[in-house]
Amino acid sequence: MGQNVAQKLIAAHLVSGEMTPGQEIALRIDQTLTQDATGTLVMLELEALGLDRARTEVSVQYVDHNLLQTDSKNAEDHDFLRSACRRFGIWYSKPGNGVSHPTHMQRFGRPGTTLAGSDSHTPAAGSLGMLAIGLGGIEVAMAIAGEPIHLRMPEIWGVRLAGALPAWVSAKDVILEMLRRHGVKGGVNRIIEYHGPGLATLTAMDRHVIANMGAELGATTTVFPSDEQVRAFLRAERREDDFVEILADADATYDLADEIDLSTVEPLIALPSSPGNVVTVRDVAGRDVQQVVLGSSANPGLRDFAVVAAIVSGRQADPRVSFDVNPTSRQILQDLTKMGATFDLIAAGARLHQSGCMGCIGMGQAPANGRNSLRTVPRNFPGRSGTREDSVYLCSPETVAAAALTGQITDPRDLPALLGITCPRIKLPAESSVNTAMLEPPPAESADHTELVKGRNIASLPDFPPLPDRVEAPVVLKAGDDVSTDEILPAGARVLPYRSNIPKLAEFTFGQIDESYADRALGSRDRGGHIVVAGTNYGQGSSREHAAITPRFLGLRIVLAVSFARIHWQNLANFGVLALEFGDPDDYQRIKQDDVLVVDNLRYAIASGTAITVRNATTEDEYLARHHLSARQVAMVLAGGMIPWLRNHEPASPR
Amino acid sequence: MGQNVAQKLIAAHLVSGEMTPGQEIALRIDQTLTQDATGTLVMLELEALGLDRARTEVSVQYVDHNLLQTDSKNAEDHDFLRSACRRFGIWYSKPGNGVSHPTHMQRFGRPGTTLAGSDSHTPAAGSLGMLAIGLGGIEVAMAIAGEPIHLRMPEIWGVRLAGALPAWVSAKDVILEMLRRHGVKGGVNRIIEYHGPGLATLTAMDRHVIANMGAELGATTTVFPSDEQVRAFLRAERREDDFVEILADADATYDLADEIDLSTVEPLIALPSSPGNVVTVRDVAGRDVQQVVLGSSANPGLRDFAVVAAIVSGRQADPRVSFDVNPTSRQILQDLTKMGATFDLIAAGARLHQSGCMGCIGMGQAPANGRNSLRTVPRNFPGRSGTREDSVYLCSPETVAAAALTGQITDPRDLPALLGITCPRIKLPAESSVNTAMLEPPPAESADHTELVKGRNIASLPDFPPLPDRVEAPVVLKAGDDVSTDEILPAGARVLPYRSNIPKLAEFTFGQIDESYADRALGSRDRGGHIVVAGTNYGQGSSREHAAITPRFLGLRIVLAVSFARIHWQNLANFGVLALEFGDPDDYQRIKQDDVLVVDNLRYAIASGTAITVRNATTEDEYLARHHLSARQVAMVLAGGMIPWLRNHEPASPR
Repeated sequence: MGQNVAQKLIAAHLVSGEMTPGQEIALRIDQTLTQDATGTLVMLELEALGLDRARTEVSVQYVDHNLLQTDSKNAEDHDFLRSACRRFGIWYSKPGNGVSHPTHMQRFGRPGTTLAGSDSHTPAAGSLGMLAIGLGGIEVAMAIAGEPIHLRMPEIWGVRLAGALPAWVSAKDVILEMLRRHGVKGGVNRIIEYHGPGLATLTAMDRHVIANMGAELGATTTVFPSDEQVRAFLRAERREDDFVEILADADATYDLADEIDLSTVEPLIALPSSPGNVVTVRDVAGRDVQQVVLGSSANPGLRDFAVVAAIVSGRQADPRVSFDVNPTSRQILQDLTKMGATFDLIAAGARLHQSGCMGCIGMGQAPANGRNSLRTVPRNFPGRSGTREDSVYLCSPETVAAAALTGQITDPRDLPALLGITCPRIKLPAESSVNTAMLEPPPAESADHTELVKGRNIASLPDFPPLPDRVEAPVVLKAGDDVSTDEILPAGARVLPYRSNIPKLAEFTFGQIDESYADRALGSRDRGGHIVVAGTNYGQGSSREHAAITPRFLGLRIVLAVSFARIHWQNLANFGVLALEFGDPDDYQRIKQDDVLVVDNLRYAIASGTAITVRNATTEDEYLARHHLSARQVAMVLAGGMIPWLRNHEPASPR
Repeated sequence: MGQNVAQKLIAAHLVSGEMTPGQEIALRIDQTLTQDATGTLVMLELEALGLDRARTEVSVQYVDHNLLQTDSKNAEDHDFLRSACRRFGIWYSKPGNGVSHPTHMQRFGRPGTTLAGSDSHTPAAGSLGMLAIGLGGIEVAMAIAGEPIHLRMPEIWGVRLAGALPAWVSAKDVILEMLRRHGVKGGVNRIIEYHGPGLATLTAMDRHVIANMGAELGATTTVFPSDEQVRAFLRAERREDDFVEILADADATYDLADEIDLSTVEPLIALPSSPGNVVTVRDVAGRDVQQVVLGSSANPGLRDFAVVAAIVSGRQADPRVSFDVNPTSRQILQDLTKMGATFDLIAAGARLHQSGCMGCIGMGQAPANGRNSLRTVPRNFPGRSGTREDSVYLCSPETVAAAALTGQITDPRDLPALLGITCPRIKLPAESSVNTAMLEPPPAESADHTELVKGRNIASLPDFPPLPDRVEAPVVLKAGDDVSTDEILPAGARVLPYRSNIPKLAEFTFGQIDESYADRALGSRDRGGHIVVAGTNYGQGSSREHAAITPRFLGLRIVLAVSFARIHWQNLANFGVLALEFGDPDDYQRIKQDDVLVVDNLRYAIASGTAITVRNATTEDEYLARHHLSARQVAMVLAGGMIPWLRNHEPASPR
């Protein structure tokens, strides 16, 4: 039987397990990607593992998140990361070089390889026919050390594309259409594979947009074939030698199927405050806009900036609008400038920010409370912008340009009638201005004994004890559905500088949901810990493992939820928190905050895989719950997390 | 007897007083400039004054300081400022339009006029033959309301320039030479007036560099004649009609004199952490550099960016260096981009930040502790960068470019030998790309009844009670010499967002010097207040009146110092703090922190102008002290500050 692209990529990297949906598989990893918000912990983990040198084909550390530098912490972390790269044989992408995903795609992405990244948008590399998966930092650390990654074999979801996009509609609208149809849980435990004749009209960078935001569907990853569009991309990056063709077999099948006729896609927009709240732009046209933000890994390509530049060229942004532009990378800004498009943006009143993630992760550009901000970024979870009561919409570059000019949400298809603007046709340069000067290669083969440069804000990970056999603990927080890791532990300029300082960082835990959580949880820590109860899709969004570590530091032992998002669920296991799912989802309603829950014989019950009885000592109810951990994960949770587990169970020889 | 330029400008605007050094004079103000860090208070003050419409020729509110927007506060302040501009008839320069000083010079500066600005670098406009003075916000508010400003007639210090600057040396080195000779107190109570044949070789923007950093000498202001260079500047800005010639009379004299032969000036650099620590670059060549920062109002012009672009063109910044570029304004970035220089900077590895003050005021780009950062900014007071133990050097764009390429402090004159670079000759465009779209004019003549848009972080000023007749209070802080307002109340991304929230802001007071001050001072507030004792030049640097308001809020009643910097001294009076100078400077040594000082019959003593006896209740010593307040200032201090004074003494009719 023929294979689809995802199956081919998995089969070529399968270390153990069977490619049957739901079975745990182990995959060999060719490349890794870390960014600075998660990477400092990864480097500390590599140090703890005693790694001599990265065992991957290529590992790259990007500095793209913490760029504002409002005090010494970020600059010192940059020094630390650079020293760790030299020590462990990892490429170092300097602050200012750009966002990891498009930069990795342009400089390192190679069809047919696997990529593990400590960032939830790692799947963007699926645009090049790669299998690219976002993971918690410690799993990426293990991958750098040459270990396989483990996951449950997902279902493969074939989405057939037909036709071509109409004027004023672009790739962002395609992924918004997917989110409109399927919501933020639609891709859970699935790999989305795009195929069909419509693909020929989408460039590799268009596909990046779609693959990137597959993360918002909850998908394990997204893959595209490696075809002539990929070849053209690699040629423009002067890496045509890296091209290999990877297509689905003619008789390939998929576990599930969907189809999009591109010619029918309209300008779409996700309303505050979820990527799943998608409506047509026309439905909400006329609302006032205070800010537009162009950039991020969700619309990273030269084309996405150039099209906006062309639309606003010779015009002026509305005086009420802050028109914020975050170039994705130095290379893209260089090309944009060469084309004259940077000039057009500036002349039209853009605030041109430094290259990097910036506004996407609340690193500046926070809007006023309750005022509408239209952004090309991938996420609009509450507070992610840095503003507590933000009102962030997600849309295409074309829709951003229209709002910049009119000061209102405006369907870009109305621009010809409103302002006499014709839909621009962008001619991109045949070759990118490849400039690798901000990308420092690791030292030559022999191990470099660079001393790690640790600023005062970089502390070792705290020790976590094993899971006890009996938990009797209060429900310190009862959370709702779709809680994102941004709500568990925010990013942003106020919080991110503490990412290597767990006790300080922990103060911000759940601050978006309940500011009293951290205090109350800390009170539980030495009295048997505490429990969080949650609804569906708990832990969606960013891969940051800090969202598991800081609650754990504050005494979290069990999360009892209706369901979990994949990466966070793995992170909980990696740091010794037991993730339990309700046997009967209705039991969620029967628990109140501050109820005391009791579980006896916990260690045996987990290891044996039987249903676990949770007794509510406050109401005297009982609930059945289950975990879905693999044997490997059970061992980690019992040990208190991956680090104590490795310490006890791995060979003592240096890696 | 002939007049110099300063005398002509003063005479033309004299409302009262005599032009005798030391006498209080009142001057009519034609233009005002406020920036956002100080401007929100100014707007609240205008509201308190009941102003209908600005009574100046032109008043402009710039948004250039608080651009990072890490939460909702800054965006909400921007909305507030825009609404206040519409309400009071003030121009609004949007976030992203640029730094106030060069933008004001390019768009509004007019020879022969007076400018009052709530920013200490306001004197930069002296480059156009203006009399431009930095003041506390409330004095600028009064100027906007049509009131004259008051100051003591300064001495006029004539500095004759001869010759022309050699290759690799530029205007920044001239002002550093002045600082090398005279230190940070050299200009106190003086107006510096440049004259002589060397002037012909300095463009108006070169003069801006020199006038801007006259503030670092403590000068009241700096003036240049309005000559052919000024005409050429206004022509390039398409405002030649605004040109009038203003030259010193042939027989003009000066109160003091100095001379600089420009041909002998060398590349100079101010060492950490004072603009007065000037040595030659060669003296410290070879020290490692982690960061360079290009930009700010001290080196704002197109030429200063273009020269760096030309030096680094086709080359790469050293991998160890963060090469940060802060374009000064949208207009300058637009011209820089048109010239191709933006491309050269990006290609060489620059991190191109948004237009505005940025790194100069610790708004991002904070370096690592103890690592060297070379900057073209005007100030390197401790901690101003955002990093507590920073190591910031001040130098020219040429010296920044050399360090960017070599990773070490490098005399730019060594670049030909080291890297084969010849000294660039920059050809600037004959016309600037004038683009006023981010500069919103006030509504037409009739008063606009725009409602002020007050975000939650904008609070009214606290009420301050009158000065009591007896002060018995502890010395909560004993500070040293040259304490800057950055040390009294820092700027930076952590603090500035609270600039309209005095109780919160007060927590940061003196944090750079003694973190326990705010707590201890607050404890004194309801028990008779407290006293600060300081050495010479107390309150140098930034004009921010918050540095008077927050200690006052915490209970400060008297500062007893050896000497004061002018703007802060005025701000203390404006907010009801009594500034006393030691009769015998040696008495400074006789007071310890926590000593209790007692002054009796204070109100009478101040009003009568007699020496004031300060008794040290702890040691039983007595000291004589004096104030130098005018009768107007005495009345304000007795009333508790300008606002209660106005409330009691001004006519009740609306302004």
